[in-house]
Order: sequence, then structure tokens, then C-alpha cells
Amino acid sequence: MSPARLRAARRLTKRALRQRDRVFLAEGPQAVSAALATGARVTGLFVTAPAQARHAALVAAAAEAGADVQVVSGELMSELAQTVTPQGVLAVCDFIDVPLGQVVAAAPRLVALLANVRDPGNAGTVLRTADAAGADAVVFADASVDPYNGKCVRASAGSLFHLPIVAGVRLPEAVAALRAAGLRIVAADGRAGVTLADPRARQALASPTAWLFGNEAWGLSADLLALADESVAVPIYGRAESLNLAAAAAVCMYASAAALRVRDQAR
Amino acid sequence: MSPARLRAARRLTKRALRQRDRVFLAEGPQAVSAALATGARVTGLFVTAPAQARHAALVAAAAEAGADVQVVSGELMSELAQTVTPQGVLAVCDFIDVPLGQVVAAAPRLVALLANVRDPGNAGTVLRTADAAGADAVVFADASVDPYNGKCVRASAGSLFHLPIVAGVRLPEAVAALRAAGLRIVAADGRAGVTLADPRARQALASPTAWLFGNEAWGLSADLLALADESVAVPIYGRAESLNLAAAAAVCMYASAAALRVRDQAR
Repeated sequence: MSPARLRAARRLTKRALRQRDRVFLAEGPQAVSAALATGARVTGLFVTAPAQARHAALVAAAAEAGADVQVVSGELMSELAQTVTPQGVLAVCDFIDVPLGQVVAAAPRLVALLANVRDPGNAGTVLRTADAAGADAVVFADASVDPYNGKCVRASAGSLFHLPIVAGVRLPEAVAALRAAGLRIVAADGRAGVTLADPRARQALASPTAWLFGNEAWGLSADLLALADESVAVPIYGRAESLNLAAAAAVCMYASAAALRVRDQAR
Repeated sequence: MSPARLRAARRLTKRALRQRDRVFLAEGPQAVSAALATGARVTGLFVTAPAQARHAALVAAAAEAGADVQVVSGELMSELAQTVTPQGVLAVCDFIDVPLGQVVAAAPRLVALLANVRDPGNAGTVLRTADAAGADAVVFADASVDPYNGKCVRASAGSLFHLPIVAGVRLPEAVAALRAAGLRIVAADGRAGVTLADPRARQALASPTAWLFGNEAWGLSADLLALADESVAVPIYGRAESLNLAAAAAVCMYASAAALRVRDQAR
């Protein structure tokens, strides 16, 4: 393989260089098949020889879709995938994030809004959970991790490609646009006086909602909480001080999914 | 500090050597304060000079409780804590797991049963979530990770000390004992025909339940599923193939917590 192609791929392990070309690396058969299934533009595919044998149909589909397929060593794969146990296939994809206006125009009913979520594994897990709960979009706001970070892509288990994502917006701007589209902005905040155990809080989730999730260590600061229409806590019944972000987000988004479906069935 | 003490502490980073002496390392102020607050036996405390200043009350409480306090370098702390960003305090604690019979005798209503959960971060997160949801115990069965693994202790954010844990039991034995104590064994299985969206499945959680959670990558095998009384899936409303283990466990255990509280209020 040409040194120039390799250099180009290596550059994509750095955020600034991904953003320059709006191209990223998606590792693993799940991510690659999600990319192909959802019509993301896959321009290249790196594959190890064993993975080529194991995922022959996937490699053929990528080539069919126009990807330039390159067989690489396991060592090179590890370097590009930035993991000690890469799965042997890695696609070069064009960015897939969409403008905030596009999300808002589609009359969303459930949105996850990440404010300063810094850990890529957490962000990818929240993305996967949002997808599972039927969310209409995930917005990465303020100092949140880059959704195209390799660990985030991997933790999302293909979900990065399944629902619209918005990247690099300021939180006040995202809140204003979602509120103008009729969504209530509900902050998930462990210190809130109202919890999801309150039937009224659960029923209120039957109306379109954007859940605001804060940083995994310090939550939402007072000025970010002030942007929300209200704050709701996941109730703590035991002695834990709090839930971790991904667990709290799962409980919150599934509470929304349940409330939205109860409303749909009542119609 | 004496080379012998340091050697003894270093040994505790290995599972087999922890098990020989039934002693483990709990890192971070949250874990150390949970250990002290719950009466775990803390025999030693390693602390860096900056952490000693920052957590003076905690260090004093540990000394008061009989811990031998040793000030160590940041480098040594990193080695013992096995993390790149240790929080500067690390306790040497006696094991706290209890026999299965003790859990069963306390008439538990909600138990998390981990079958072959291998990732320590996942296991610790499930432990923290079980605590938050008011579970009565967490059982680490079959080839599940050691609950005293440093990453598991850290991910549990103190919850390891908050509720009874059982370690190193065989799953059939745990299932038989819990069933004999009147708990339904409910497997969390993404392929189950019944989901938590079914009101009957949710209402059934008002009776004492042990949730069975499988390996993060391959779930529960047919022979483990056969041990359960029934299987229930978290519904998937979007295009995700599945949820990650910690997210699924959060949704399942909070569904139980809600059903148990509805029953309590109806009485």
C-alpha cells in the first residue's frame, strides 16, 4: 500500500485532521455494515487477511459501494484502530453529522443533548442507548467529545450511523432551536427535587422532549441547568450517591420512550 | 516505607494473591469513605502528600479506625491504583463478600445475578446501578470478573461497600437458592419474545426478582437461559441491535424498583 494512503489514514486518528477533511475511521464489522446499510459514503476499507476471509460479504459490499479495499497487517490495523484488539475491518467514511436545522425541521419527539460529555466511551454508549430508545437525534454540544473519536464510534456499536447526529454546536443555540420546535428541555440532574418516580414527571415525557445530559464527573453547572425548562432526577433508592451517565441516560430515555408510546396508543 | 509492606500491597493487584489473604485495594476518596462508613475493616491507607492535604478528614478517620497510614509518591500510587489518574488515596481492606445463604436469609426482593460478566468496568457500573435502584444484593457467578478488581471497585463508585455482594458461586447453585427463597429468576435477554413494554411483564416485577445478566459480548447461552423462570428483553425502538450491558441492566433494575414501589404504595 502506498505511503501516501497510509499517511492519510493515520491522520484521521487526530480530531483536527478529521475535521479538516470531514472524514473519519469507523472500526469493526458492525460499524462498517451500518455505514453501508445507511448510505454513508465509504471511500476506503482497511482489512486484515483473516478478517477478509471472515467478513467476505462485507468486504465485497464495501468494494461494490465504491470503497478502495486495502489489505493491511494486524500491526497496522492496531495502529489505525487505536485499540489492542481491533476487529480487522476499518472504513474510511465521510462525516455524517447534519445541521441542527435539519433535525429541528423533522419534528423530533425525543432528542439527547450532550453538554460537555467528555469520555468517548460514555458518549458512544449514550448514542447507542438513544438509538435503542427510538430517539430522533443526538446533539453533541459545547465541549462534548468528538462523535468521530474512534472509541465513541466503537462504543456506539453502529448507532452513530442509525440516527441523525449534530456536532459542534453551542448549547444555548441548540436549546433555543429545539424549544422553538416545541420540545421541552429536561435536564437530567441527580440533585433535582422532582424524580422519575413522580407520575406527573413521567407523564410529562409524553410531549416532545430533549434530555440534557451533563459531564460524567461534575454534571450540569448552574448556568447550563438554567437553560432547561425543568430538571428531573433518576430516583436513588439505595446508598449510591449517583448513577453513572450512561445508566442515568438509559433510564431517562426509556422513560420517555414508554411515555411517548402510551400516548400513541391512547390516540 | 518498608519494602515488605510495599511488596504486600503490590501483591494485591493480582486476583490470586488477593484471594489468598482475602484483602484488596480500594482506590479513591469515594471508595475509602464508603469503606469506613459501612464498617469494612481498613487495615492500611496509602496517600500521596497532596491528597493528604485535600482529604485530611478522611485520612484522620482511617487512622482513627485503625488503618496504618503511609504517605507515598505519586508514582507508587499510580502503580498500586493501576490507573493513570489515581485520586491519591487507596485503602487496604478486608474482603466484604458474604455467603449466598446470608443474602437469601434476608428475604431479598431485588437481586442482580451476573453470569460471566467479564469487563470490570461493566460489572462495577452494574453494581453501582443495582445500589441506586435499591437492590438487596449483587451475585458474581461463574466466570464473572472478580468484584475486587481495581477497575470494578473504581466503577462501582463506593457501591461495592453499600450492599451485600456474593462472589465465586456457580450459577445453578445461586439460582436454586434464590428460587427457594421465593424469587423469580428473570433473564435479561435481547432476543426474548416478551419485552418490558408489556404491562404484564412490568407488573410481574412487583414480586421478588433476581435479574440474570449475561456476558457483555455474547449474552446468555441457551443452557444459562434455561435456568431462568422467564426471559424479558428491553424493547428496541430504533435501529440498534442491542443495548450495552450496563444500560440494559439500568432499565431492567429500575423497572423492578418502580414495580416494587407501586406494590408497596398499594398496601
